[in-house]
Amino acid sequence: MATADRSNLIPFSSRLKEGRALAEDVWSIYNVANLPADCINLGQGYMNFPPPVVEALGVVSANHYSHPKGRIRLREAIKNFYGPQFNRDLDVEKEILVTSGANEGEYAVLTAFLEQDDEVIMFEPFFDQYLPSITFNAGKPIYVPLHPPTSASGKFSSDEWKIDPEELENAITPRTKMIIVNTPHNPVGKVFTKAELEMIAGLAEKHNLLVMADEVYDCLVFDGKEHVRIANLPGMWDRTVTVGSAGKSFAATGWRVGWLIGPASIIKPTLAATTRIVFATNSPLQEAAAAGLEQAKERKFFQTQVAEYAERRQILTDCFDALGLPYTNPEGSYFILLDISKVKFPDDYPFPQSVLGRGRDFRACWFIALEIGVSSIPVSEFYCIEHANIGEVYARFAFCKDLDTLRNAAERFKKLKQYIV
Amino acid sequence: MATADRSNLIPFSSRLKEGRALAEDVWSIYNVANLPADCINLGQGYMNFPPPVVEALGVVSANHYSHPKGRIRLREAIKNFYGPQFNRDLDVEKEILVTSGANEGEYAVLTAFLEQDDEVIMFEPFFDQYLPSITFNAGKPIYVPLHPPTSASGKFSSDEWKIDPEELENAITPRTKMIIVNTPHNPVGKVFTKAELEMIAGLAEKHNLLVMADEVYDCLVFDGKEHVRIANLPGMWDRTVTVGSAGKSFAATGWRVGWLIGPASIIKPTLAATTRIVFATNSPLQEAAAAGLEQAKERKFFQTQVAEYAERRQILTDCFDALGLPYTNPEGSYFILLDISKVKFPDDYPFPQSVLGRGRDFRACWFIALEIGVSSIPVSEFYCIEHANIGEVYARFAFCKDLDTLRNAAERFKKLKQYIV
Ligand SMILES: Cc1ncc(COP(=O)(O)O)c(C=O)c1O
Ligand SMILES: Cc1ncc(COP(=O)(O)O)c(C=O)c1O
Repeated sequence: MATADRSNLIPFSSRLKEGRALAEDVWSIYNVANLPADCINLGQGYMNFPPPVVEALGVVSANHYSHPKGRIRLREAIKNFYGPQFNRDLDVEKEILVTSGANEGEYAVLTAFLEQDDEVIMFEPFFDQYLPSITFNAGKPIYVPLHPPTSASGKFSSDEWKIDPEELENAITPRTKMIIVNTPHNPVGKVFTKAELEMIAGLAEKHNLLVMADEVYDCLVFDGKEHVRIANLPGMWDRTVTVGSAGKSFAATGWRVGWLIGPASIIKPTLAATTRIVFATNSPLQEAAAAGLEQAKERKFFQTQVAEYAERRQILTDCFDALGLPYTNPEGSYFILLDISKVKFPDDYPFPQSVLGRGRDFRACWFIALEIGVSSIPVSEFYCIEHANIGEVYARFAFCKDLDTLRNAAERFKKLKQYIV
Repeated sequence: MATADRSNLIPFSSRLKEGRALAEDVWSIYNVANLPADCINLGQGYMNFPPPVVEALGVVSANHYSHPKGRIRLREAIKNFYGPQFNRDLDVEKEILVTSGANEGEYAVLTAFLEQDDEVIMFEPFFDQYLPSITFNAGKPIYVPLHPPTSASGKFSSDEWKIDPEELENAITPRTKMIIVNTPHNPVGKVFTKAELEMIAGLAEKHNLLVMADEVYDCLVFDGKEHVRIANLPGMWDRTVTVGSAGKSFAATGWRVGWLIGPASIIKPTLAATTRIVFATNSPLQEAAAAGLEQAKERKFFQTQVAEYAERRQILTDCFDALGLPYTNPEGSYFILLDISKVKFPDDYPFPQSVLGRGRDFRACWFIALEIGVSSIPVSEFYCIEHANIGEVYARFAFCKDLDTLRNAAERFKKLKQYIV
């Protein structure tokens, strides 16, 4: 008699079957572990330099539970730093909530507001965590594409990616509960203009929708471009929750400290949700984030950082210019979308199973990682299946890396020339 | 024309209406902010002394995203520390998962396994986070009481709190998906015996149930009592996930680092869930937890810690003995349940609204906090409404405080004598 297979006694929840949650995710496929040891990793958007405020950690003495709202020192620091940007005297008890990274904050907002089958609109390409965060909370993701300029050749601005207002309004139904607006945008780098945000705000007002303004890259806007906050548009404060991240602001993604700013009507239910999901955010790194925000202005921390990132960006754009490949020059965040449609690779290249049967970009990224030695992320991953063809044209390169790494990558990119048709 | 009220444009999710999620929770009511400034806080179970392993923080250089599974150094440390206790060569890739505190780990297991209306059995009194963690994930909590000895007077052991096996089996239905077994138990302090766990395991096997073994206090077992792991009983590994917490093990609740140990069939879906909920756990304190586990054995860290907690416990039990009030002497965790039925207080005492209309224990705890100057938590909060009368007899005092604080509390308790009838 064969022994019974006891390796899967209890089936997992069907919610994992939606939202690609169990599929091998793109981060795992293009993970350093799967790529040649000396491949330069410009795929995942995390920094390979230490956070500039790390010395703050030295003075940390807070090792016990913080209040689920966040440590008061950090909430005060957020109030002082962001209050002027929102033109509000933010209430640290009711309008600010510290979360365990922006990611958990966004998850908690969805837990707090979604009913079964409520619809959430997001713009494609989208930060991939939105999708499962919505479906795990019984909601339904709805996709509205950002369209790149069709005639683009050479360098073009992230500003040229556009929403079609009609497409957006057509996506709204009586079940729509929320629109997620990510500005500066990952992975396009687009910083939404006031006019664009006014259009979105108008629809949110007209259809009584919540807006989740994912502004985790708000400290990373280049070339003097104005970062407009949708919460500041007339009437929008009451329906908008703005999301921030210490990980992005301070180049310390591993701290897992984020924050939400919004009206009490959004913060209070979200506090109830986050309290049950994680109870509270880690204390030592809340102190570190508070120290960072407190000192940012005086130390001109963000001005310096933007200049540093602009220099990093330049290294890659110079190199793409030299190759003559079209790409999106980002006004914000730290990603460049390179148009890889002219990069030619042999059809019979020994691709692993995980990239076959996906978009052409999956194969292109694999080929570039193995032949050129620089990894990136295929952009069709950030689209729903029906719109994947828009993304298939691009590979996303992150430039949140130190100058040496980027220069080294630029050197290697010269080899790409021979594969361009 | 009156201005429209825009303070609540979008209703929050009905899931917050279940699971007491929006009710003022007991932690907020008995929060230091509401009590006299000099009240000694033995309510919330967090330490007022620094974690003994805090020097580990000094060497931290890990500030970027960790793998969602957890940092390999911590997973290796968990393997080495726990492997012998489970008699297994634990697989760091498939059988260990680091989570953002035990709390988020438990939430993620529920996200990963519950279908709409699946039932989860827990023993009352229960750790209050279980209830909303279940309902937020569309499940239904089912309560089976632990019964205190009816004739108890004076000191009695937490071992005397018993489950009625028939009551447990009657609670199982075709919709039951999971049993949560918390040992050592918060707030009873009970360390489940092998016979009790065998009884539960037998039912889990018979009805094909998952077991979530919440063993966050596994390093806090007193008087040489044996801590039996239900995962080690015959056949139970395949259906059991064991939960641990760096916060409890290292007296560092604010680190928000926990872990799950179990078969790949449970860890894999739970990894998918936790990756979407928080993405990853903070990096610096994973390093700190790893350093703690690595050094624990050599430094006899847990033996020393247990001796210290036993001394802390003794201060309170001596004082309750002197008062002649019955209480539960805990075999594990750091809580003492004091029988407050003989503590008399005036009915017209100026109680705040928040404690009126709740169990008698809510008023007793308030009265003791204000008159004696020592705060505690009313135990009916850890019961469902139908069984609240069992808990109403007790106040929970936490002894995870430094010796001076506890001696000071004991001194104040002398004043309680006059209110005992
Ligand atoms: C657009 C966007 N939102 C949210 C996050 C999550 O930020 P955090 O690391 O603070 O969870 C990211 C991280 O990449 C992001 O790109
Ligand atoms: C029984 C039990 N489980 C889990 C937890 C949560 O532990 P952590 O702080 O690691 O999230 C607690 C905390 O009080 C607890 O008492």
